Parts: sequence; structure tokens; C-alpha cells
Amino acid sequence: MRLSQYFLPTLKENPAEAQVVSHRLMLRAGMISQTAAGSYSWLPMGKRVLSKIEQIIREEQNRVGVHEITMPTLQPDELWQESGRSDAYGKEMLRIKDRHERTLVYAPTAEEVVTDIGRRFMKSYRDLPVGLYQIQWKFRDEIRPRFGVIRGREFLMKDAYTFDVDFESAEKTYYRMFSAYQKTFARMGVAALAVQAETGPIGGTLSHEFHVLAQTGESTLFYDPKIDELKQADTLDLKALTELYAASDELHDPAKCPLKEEELRTTKGIEMGHIFYLGMKYSEAMGLQLQGADGKMFHPHMGCFGIGVTRMVAAVIEANHDEKGMIWPWPVAPFHVGILNMRVKDEATSQICEALEEKLGAMGLQTLYDDRDERAGVKFADMDLIGVPYQILVGPKNAANQQVELKNRRTGEVELLSVDEAVNALKSQQEHFARQVFQG
Amino acid sequence: MRLSQYFLPTLKENPAEAQVVSHRLMLRAGMISQTAAGSYSWLPMGKRVLSKIEQIIREEQNRVGVHEITMPTLQPDELWQESGRSDAYGKEMLRIKDRHERTLVYAPTAEEVVTDIGRRFMKSYRDLPVGLYQIQWKFRDEIRPRFGVIRGREFLMKDAYTFDVDFESAEKTYYRMFSAYQKTFARMGVAALAVQAETGPIGGTLSHEFHVLAQTGESTLFYDPKIDELKQADTLDLKALTELYAASDELHDPAKCPLKEEELRTTKGIEMGHIFYLGMKYSEAMGLQLQGADGKMFHPHMGCFGIGVTRMVAAVIEANHDEKGMIWPWPVAPFHVGILNMRVKDEATSQICEALEEKLGAMGLQTLYDDRDERAGVKFADMDLIGVPYQILVGPKNAANQQVELKNRRTGEVELLSVDEAVNALKSQQEHFARQVFQG
Repeated sequence: MRLSQYFLPTLKENPAEAQVVSHRLMLRAGMISQTAAGSYSWLPMGKRVLSKIEQIIREEQNRVGVHEITMPTLQPDELWQESGRSDAYGKEMLRIKDRHERTLVYAPTAEEVVTDIGRRFMKSYRDLPVGLYQIQWKFRDEIRPRFGVIRGREFLMKDAYTFDVDFESAEKTYYRMFSAYQKTFARMGVAALAVQAETGPIGGTLSHEFHVLAQTGESTLFYDPKIDELKQADTLDLKALTELYAASDELHDPAKCPLKEEELRTTKGIEMGHIFYLGMKYSEAMGLQLQGADGKMFHPHMGCFGIGVTRMVAAVIEANHDEKGMIWPWPVAPFHVGILNMRVKDEATSQICEALEEKLGAMGLQTLYDDRDERAGVKFADMDLIGVPYQILVGPKNAANQQVELKNRRTGEVELLSVDEAVNALKSQQEHFARQVFQG
Repeated sequence: MRLSQYFLPTLKENPAEAQVVSHRLMLRAGMISQTAAGSYSWLPMGKRVLSKIEQIIREEQNRVGVHEITMPTLQPDELWQESGRSDAYGKEMLRIKDRHERTLVYAPTAEEVVTDIGRRFMKSYRDLPVGLYQIQWKFRDEIRPRFGVIRGREFLMKDAYTFDVDFESAEKTYYRMFSAYQKTFARMGVAALAVQAETGPIGGTLSHEFHVLAQTGESTLFYDPKIDELKQADTLDLKALTELYAASDELHDPAKCPLKEEELRTTKGIEMGHIFYLGMKYSEAMGLQLQGADGKMFHPHMGCFGIGVTRMVAAVIEANHDEKGMIWPWPVAPFHVGILNMRVKDEATSQICEALEEKLGAMGLQTLYDDRDERAGVKFADMDLIGVPYQILVGPKNAANQQVELKNRRTGEVELLSVDEAVNALKSQQEHFARQVFQG
């Protein structure tokens, strides 16, 4: 992408309305623009990151065998009456009358619709286990939306729903999804911690929250240091892991905690995912029953598994930034490499930039080429703000020697390299991350 | 994908509520399930097709240099007041009061929001031309939703908006998008015809509708046979093409048509896309102005360019089916190849099926492996209904000779081939379509 042809409206000033660093940086880097209270338009660079995060989530969901579907954003209120949740959700759920005076709700979650799909099409225990997920826009009418896309009203969420014949099978499904979540966060280049959670109005008995660790996180997390030890192991023993103490400040109770305060480790996090074993709450309430192996009808055991997709963009920034701007982990970076043309009117300089653009593009890397006729200071500041992981600086002096500077945005390290050396260094990065995807 | 592990709830009976063939087949093949009047859940196979269509549209939009964004589904009514369209849309536009009694509308289109983005961030003629598009859910509260996803209430649409300095530049943009549309439909394996269109409540002066040709189409199209001649040419002269007469029954007026009735060609179509040159209607109404090269402020000339994405799935089916079911064009097929195991308990048969599944998968082909313990008749009927373009039939007799039958779903042709020959035949198909993408 050439910056002169892109739509990347960066701001020089810090927007006054932004209280948290991710909100500030997303506005400054032209990733989002507020369209209504708590509701954002995703501008081209924001949309690129959002799509990459979506795709990682999708790949890891597909890998554990749940199938992608899409349910409507507007759902009939009748289904919510059946489950008994229409009133429970209160004013956070947006209610709408259509032209025929039927009540629709803008879905904050989709247990009712997916259970309705189940009772239409699932007949026998042989149809199970089955899991369905969607990545779809949701709405929660927060009384006070804040922190940009962290607590917005219209947001993108991945929600998966699973159906099993009994608790034993549902528990296996639960832990399979648990490990998919760990892999999903790891692939995005962020550290995450699962803590025991309350099930709340969604119901059920087994539940975890996944927090992305960030100094600026809203939640304080308390956990058994053995968790860090277990995570070092080659193969992770999930059951052992989840038996160890880990709780957010909402649930942490020193009186009930098996460890003394000084034995606990504490950290800060942002809640990014929530998983629940739901039991038969919805299958019973909505009359979803299947024929068992013994010929008798039974209600399937369900689970539900959410990740905040739009919120994830902000969490990655909260965990990866410095005073100059964002520092994208490679797998979710809007572009892998920035090319900075330090003198657009110098032919040799421009030739090297264009050759790099073509070569890196042919390798499958995404480049952002700053071909604007701007001062060096503006180019440096913009590229640091955007946080592309690697920058190639091409100036007339080095260009004359077929050399360029390769800068690592995270470490700030700059190396003077030949054009080929720079390309090879980026190729190693690319291969490193491609291996990670397959090894999990 | 193994059918035993998939969620593909096919129906044997024709659903009574479906009046058109695409609706009937989508329900029978378990692609969609109605969740509310005019509102569908997309089940796994439907979602696969939808995603492929989305991706082709996205690639062709990116190729002409418009940038993907996402705007919220719910928009502030204030913006629609500014453009004067809040009342014009009437009851088709869903209005919602949030908890603070502010009115939101569920967007049927997004000229207002994108113009608002423009006036926040576009400063100078140097920022133009720029084009932004999204693929986002829309809602139109049709009084009588019908024909399944052809005239639903909640639907997925690609909508692009462009900004140019003057009419000349806007006209170039218009024709660049016009040709992107032709390529988009061609890549999906359907024939399309552009007809002159009225601009309607959206405004502007230059407008075309794109219809996918199908015997079962709602619209009758009248056009100059020279259009078919022009399309045969190596390079298409778009200006010449659009000067020739082509109109749908809504606009066709024999009295004003330059051709006699017997000179016209007629065909049937389904409206899939609509493109408009909008002029300065929105930039004026909403005060979007930029500084020109001469230092004076000017209102950009806008264009808008829509494609019905969910409707496209139905249109492809209307144009590609027979009495047994759907016949997917390769580029949008949910799976490229079906593997039918005719005796799952025979080891040699199953081994060949699994080897094929692995080999074709490694080539990047998507397979649907019918590994169910079902009668041959059920397997034939389901695979024909689903309409996967190629089927490989593996039975115990042929398996003993390392042979399989390769069936072309469209022609019905069946060839007895060695396993390797079958794989090579599919490889040629794959290469043929890969070339098409790049040649345009």
C-alpha cells in the first residue's frame, strides 16, 4: 500500500475524549472514528487489524472442529421470552418494534437462536457432539460507554455454542475450547491468563475468563505462581492448570483463597474471553431434545464460548505500545514492513523503495510505503505511531551504495544492511511466524 | 470436511413456504434457517458460500484501489436529518430509541456516515480521489419479505463510496467500478448484464443496475444485441457499451427506445448490483468541503456502488441448478470435490477415500467426504442436491483395481479413472480457475 493513496488520517494532537492509551492511539493513528456514542467506524488501517484478529480466531475455531455460521443481529423477542431472559437483560438489551409492531432485540448474545436451530435440526445422539460459532456484530446499550472499543455499545464478538450428549462429553469439549483459546491468544502475540469466573445471568456451573495481560488493564488478577511453572512445560496439563487458584479482583476472596497473600502472584489484565459450561439450562427451557442411544429423549449439555473481537484490537495495543505509539505483534500487524522513502525526488532512492515494495509483496509480506513528499520527522513519527513491526529507511546516501537501514520498531535497533540482507532478515521473520501457526 | 462430523441438515421434502427455486434448494440443502420474518441464520454450508462470494467481491474492490472499512449497523438519526433522508425512507427504515431516548436507525445504506467521515478527515484536493467500502449487514423493513434471501429484511451488502475533485474524475471512477463489477460477476461464474437505471431516492444522474441472468429472474431485460458483440471483443470498450440501449422492464419504454421491438434482445435477470454517480448531493447537504488546487473550497463529487451479497448466493443458484439440486460454479462452491464412500466398512474403499481426502486437501482443494454408513441412493441424492462441482465415487469393486469414478455434476458425465488420473483432472480444473483470477 502506498501511503499517498491510502486513507490514514493521523492526528498530531492527543484527542481530549480518550482516557486510555489504546483509545488515544487508535484515534491518533486513524484506525477508528466515533459515529455515535460507544459506536465506531473502523477506518482502513483499523479494519485491517480487525480482520487479522478475526482470521486467527476463525482458524483456531475451525481447527477444533466447530463450524462457522452467521445468525441475524436482530432476533425475535419471543425466543428470549421462552428462555426467560427477555426481562433479565434489562435496559442493556436494545428492543425494537418493526413495522408490524413485532418486538425484535439487537442480540447481545445468541443462546436462544442457536438452541432454536438445534431443536429444528438435531434429532439423535448421533448428531452430537456439534459446535457452531459466529463472528457477528452485537449491541449492548451500556449506560456509559467508555474506553473506546473496550467498552463500546456496538461491538464484534466471536460466540461459539456446543452441544454434547452428557456432562463428560461436554467437559471434554470445554477443555478443547479452553486450549483453542490459549492458542488463539498466543498466536496474536499476547500473554493471557485464565481465571475462575462466575457464570452470571448466562447460567451453568463451569466458567473461566481469559484476560490479556497489560499494565494498563482494568482488572487485578491473583494467581498461584505454579501456573507460570506449568505453562513452561512442553505439554500443558489443562486439568492441573485449572485446578490451581486464579481469580480476578471481582471474585478474589482472601478468606477463601487456599494460598496466603504473600504466596500469590498479581498482575493486571483486560477481559477478552469468557467461556461457560451451560448444562441443560437452554435445552430444557426451550425444549431441545434428542433421541439417545437407549431410545429415550434427552436434553443436550451446552457450552458457550465468547471472545471480544473489536475489544481485542484495543487489548493488543494496551499490551504493546510505547510513548511513540503502537508496536504491533507481527501476526496482527496491519502491515509487516514500512518502507520510508527519505527523498522521493531522488531517483535511486525511489527505485530501491519500489523494488523493495515489489519484492516483499511477492513474498507475501504486506508493506506500507511512505512515498509522500514530507519531512523526515513527519515520516518517522507517523511510522512509529502506526507501529508497523519493521521499518526500512531508504535515503539517498545509502541508496547510492545499495544499502538501507532496517529498524525494529520494538527494540529501536537499527542495522545498516544491503538490500538483499534486509529482505532476508524479513524473510526469516516471516518463516518464524509461519512455523508458529502450524506448531501451535 | 467429513460429512459425519458436519452440520448439514438436509431436508427430503420441499418446504411449503418456498416459492422460488433458490429458496427451496437453500432450505433443502441446510444452507439457511429462518430465524424471523425475512431474516435467516446462515448454517455452515451456506456460510461457506457466502464467505467465498464476499471474498471475491473484496478482492475485486481492493484491486481497483478502494479501501475496506466497517461502519456501525446502527447510525444516529441526526445524520439522516442532515441529508434530508430521514423522512424520505419511510417505514422501510427501522428506527430505534436507545436507553437515553436518542433515535438510532438500522442502516439500509451509509452515504450519511461516510460523508461524515469525509468531513472529519478530508482536507484538501490532494486527499482525493479516495474510495471506501464495507461489507456489512443492512436492514430494510420490507412490508412483505419473500423469496428467501432475495428479498429479506436483514441482508449483507457491499457498499462503496467514492470522492473525486470534479465530474471528469468521478466519471473515471464510475467506469473503473463498472469494470470491477463485470469482473466480479464473471469470477463467480455467472453472466451479468448492466442496464441503465433510475437513480431513485439516492440521487445523482448516472446509474446502472447489474443483473445476473437467470431464466427464473424477476426482471425482464431489453437490450441492443450489439452488447453481446462488444463483450466478445478482447478489450471491452465500456463507454461504447454503456451507450447502447439496455433497460429493465421497470424503465423500458418502447416509445423512447431507439431500436424497434424486433431488433431488441430480451432476457431474464435478478438485480444484484446498483451503481450511482451522486454528484454533490451529500457533500453539499452535509457540508463536506475541501480546499482546491486554486485555494478555493469545493464539494467533492461522490459515487456509490452496491452489491447484494446474501442475495448473490440465491442468484447463483437461480442461474445454476437442475431438477436434482444446485450446481455450484467452482469459484463459489462450498466444496470443490465430494468424495462418496460407497461401502464404509470395506477397508480398501475407505483407504482410497482417505488418501484422496488428504491428497486433495494438501493441493488446497476443499473436499466434502461422505463417510456416513448410508445407502448409495441417499449419498447420490445428497451430493447432487448440495451441488459440489465434482464427485469422486469410490466403491469396493473399483477400489480393488485402484480405480474411481469421477463425475461432473453439471454434465452428469462419469469417467472411470485411476486414482492418480482423477487427482490430475481436478488439478487441471484448479489451475484453470487460478489463472482466471489473475487474467481477469
